[in-house]
Amino acid sequence: MQDRGATITGFVCAKCGRSYGADQVRYVCPDCGGEGILDVLYDYEEMARRVTRRSFADTGEFSLWRYLPMLPVASSASAPPLRAGWTPLYRAEGLLGLKSVFVKDDSRNPTASLKDRATAVGVARAASEQVGAVAAASTGNAGCSLAGFAAAMGMRCYIFVPKSAPRPKVAQLLVFGATVFAVDGSYDDAFDLAMEAIERFGWYNRCCAVNPFLVEGKKTVALEVAEQMGFEVPDKVFLSVGDGCIASGVAKGFRELEQLGLTDRVPRIIGVQAEGCSPVCSAFESGSDVEPATACTCADSIAVGHPRNWRKALKGIRASGGKMMTVTDEEIIAAIPELARATGVFGEPAGVTSFAGLAKAVRQGEVESDETIVVLMTGSGLKDTESAMRSAGQPVPVGREIGDVEAKLRELDAAGRRRG
Amino acid sequence: MQDRGATITGFVCAKCGRSYGADQVRYVCPDCGGEGILDVLYDYEEMARRVTRRSFADTGEFSLWRYLPMLPVASSASAPPLRAGWTPLYRAEGLLGLKSVFVKDDSRNPTASLKDRATAVGVARAASEQVGAVAAASTGNAGCSLAGFAAAMGMRCYIFVPKSAPRPKVAQLLVFGATVFAVDGSYDDAFDLAMEAIERFGWYNRCCAVNPFLVEGKKTVALEVAEQMGFEVPDKVFLSVGDGCIASGVAKGFRELEQLGLTDRVPRIIGVQAEGCSPVCSAFESGSDVEPATACTCADSIAVGHPRNWRKALKGIRASGGKMMTVTDEEIIAAIPELARATGVFGEPAGVTSFAGLAKAVRQGEVESDETIVVLMTGSGLKDTESAMRSAGQPVPVGREIGDVEAKLRELDAAGRRRG
Repeated sequence: MQDRGATITGFVCAKCGRSYGADQVRYVCPDCGGEGILDVLYDYEEMARRVTRRSFADTGEFSLWRYLPMLPVASSASAPPLRAGWTPLYRAEGLLGLKSVFVKDDSRNPTASLKDRATAVGVARAASEQVGAVAAASTGNAGCSLAGFAAAMGMRCYIFVPKSAPRPKVAQLLVFGATVFAVDGSYDDAFDLAMEAIERFGWYNRCCAVNPFLVEGKKTVALEVAEQMGFEVPDKVFLSVGDGCIASGVAKGFRELEQLGLTDRVPRIIGVQAEGCSPVCSAFESGSDVEPATACTCADSIAVGHPRNWRKALKGIRASGGKMMTVTDEEIIAAIPELARATGVFGEPAGVTSFAGLAKAVRQGEVESDETIVVLMTGSGLKDTESAMRSAGQPVPVGREIGDVEAKLRELDAAGRRRG
Repeated sequence: MQDRGATITGFVCAKCGRSYGADQVRYVCPDCGGEGILDVLYDYEEMARRVTRRSFADTGEFSLWRYLPMLPVASSASAPPLRAGWTPLYRAEGLLGLKSVFVKDDSRNPTASLKDRATAVGVARAASEQVGAVAAASTGNAGCSLAGFAAAMGMRCYIFVPKSAPRPKVAQLLVFGATVFAVDGSYDDAFDLAMEAIERFGWYNRCCAVNPFLVEGKKTVALEVAEQMGFEVPDKVFLSVGDGCIASGVAKGFRELEQLGLTDRVPRIIGVQAEGCSPVCSAFESGSDVEPATACTCADSIAVGHPRNWRKALKGIRASGGKMMTVTDEEIIAAIPELARATGVFGEPAGVTSFAGLAKAVRQGEVESDETIVVLMTGSGLKDTESAMRSAGQPVPVGREIGDVEAKLRELDAAGRRRG
């Protein structure tokens, strides 16, 4: 009985609000086209009968499949073998002077980013629809994630990248055996060509902004946070925003838990963008639609000048009583060692942008010291050691004599005392 | 009651065989010095009363601390917050034509390598001994692991590296806030200076070849493999060998499970070294002591020309009925995409050396197709994307027209048919 997913009742368009039945649409709203990203609706009465605060742990699943009764996947038979989700939530008492801060380390997923949650659900859907090939446009975490999961599933995988994509990122896609098309054009050209090819060749579309099921995978990070905190939801959740899919998923996850009566409220969601690429933040502040912006930030995984899922994201953030904010690249780079030294969690720039946002909010007096805060850390620092090198500091040169070490320790100690 | 570690009864020297009481020695055998690495002995009668095949799962711990009653740590109170262990064991049916192959993905540890198991036990020992500083000589996974765990524990951390250590590796140590001493000399000079400084300043020694408790952490990978296979141990376990500590730990883990009556035998342990640095393999074949060798291999994490834990390793491998073998760097590099494409697990060169060994053994007819095989994958491919780039292949250039994609797909398809 529990080895069965949620019953999908239909979809609603995030733009025009029109509803569709479960079998009426495949990806986006026919009226709104690419702007009409859908939200998945379930039979929540049935879901409420099936899940309790204890039922997740009772599955014995230490992956996101413990939430199968809340996911759009018919049965665990189509789940990929790679173990995604159920990442650690670390308490970091005293961090930034706060009493109750938690860091959700989603770099602990199979390909080292939160994207694996979306991919896990995506490939499970593809398998249940008996589609043997999956595709996406991506130079980063989403592409790697899809390539890795497709390999584990024995599915063919096609990834479209602009021909200027950096070789190390392309190599990671190729290592997993994906066919990588290097498109003679920009990222937007690669995206458009990918959508056309997906349509033409019947591949499964792993793009969060097009395929509504992928955000369902991302929402599991919210379900885990809630369960790991004993269903006492935090006051605020800080997360990094690029396309808006993670914010959309997190908002939906917390909303559904409240709707099911498992929690009593939704936390305020604070979306953080890099100052050099902040179209979603601008739209939040102006109240108007997103305007495409330039993308100039070291946080490459959220450098999305033309975000596609901003409507769902802003709707979720506004409904939660949260807000959008920006941080500079300097603040992002500084946040890498600051978080690593306090918690042992090493993030990539986009992964720690959330934490940089929290640090800034604390400095600006916008966080009370007794608030309960969760920071989502979405990707591994090993994906971008170059950025880490910019703020890591320098080693201490010594000769081969123990006396040298002793002298340097005295210097360090004195410097520490001067600073402290 | 279960929140209590094993009772240590003493130590035995791996070289001279002399036994010591639990409080008689700290690190190595006083008679044999650095060559006299100790093995930890426990009250196995008490342990047998405390553990059953079910007791591990009953702890509800999804980390290596589910094996606390078999570990030299007094209580879970001193355990570090980072979640180490309980990594996935993936079945890879049909891989290399074998019916029953499993891949243990130990890149899923906090700092992305198996070393975190040893570090977790090491820092827990340091905490219980109220030592506030830990130290090691390392340019690689062990150093990163120690730096990460020390950060999470709020301990000071000192790492000694040769001044020629590559900047990206040093940066990872610095990101976690370790004090990194860049020693004007070779790795051996850095090692010697580290040992002297540890002695002088009373830091806790995180070196597997000196501190016998660290191998106890590494043995947990064997405990997990056994439990994840329902206590039906595999026929053979393939693992990469550098210093010999992982082989020692794996052998001890399986031996203890048999001794406790939880399994009925120890699998054959097949240790794999890189041809360009294979002193342990040479000693296995000659039957004499290890002779220091040059280290010339792309598998940097096992490029140990002067291994220190070879006695324990060879004793364990021989007792298991296993053997040592070598693979070339070309075989190692080829193994990276081969494993990634079959399983979705992306390893660093040293991490897949074990798998390269299995592939070679299969080619040489040394593995029956119905044998049950486990391959230990010990470190993430993200730690060394340069090596992955050497064998990943090339992207497919296309223009912006769907016709280009179609034409290339036909070419790929034809080429695939020619090959297949």
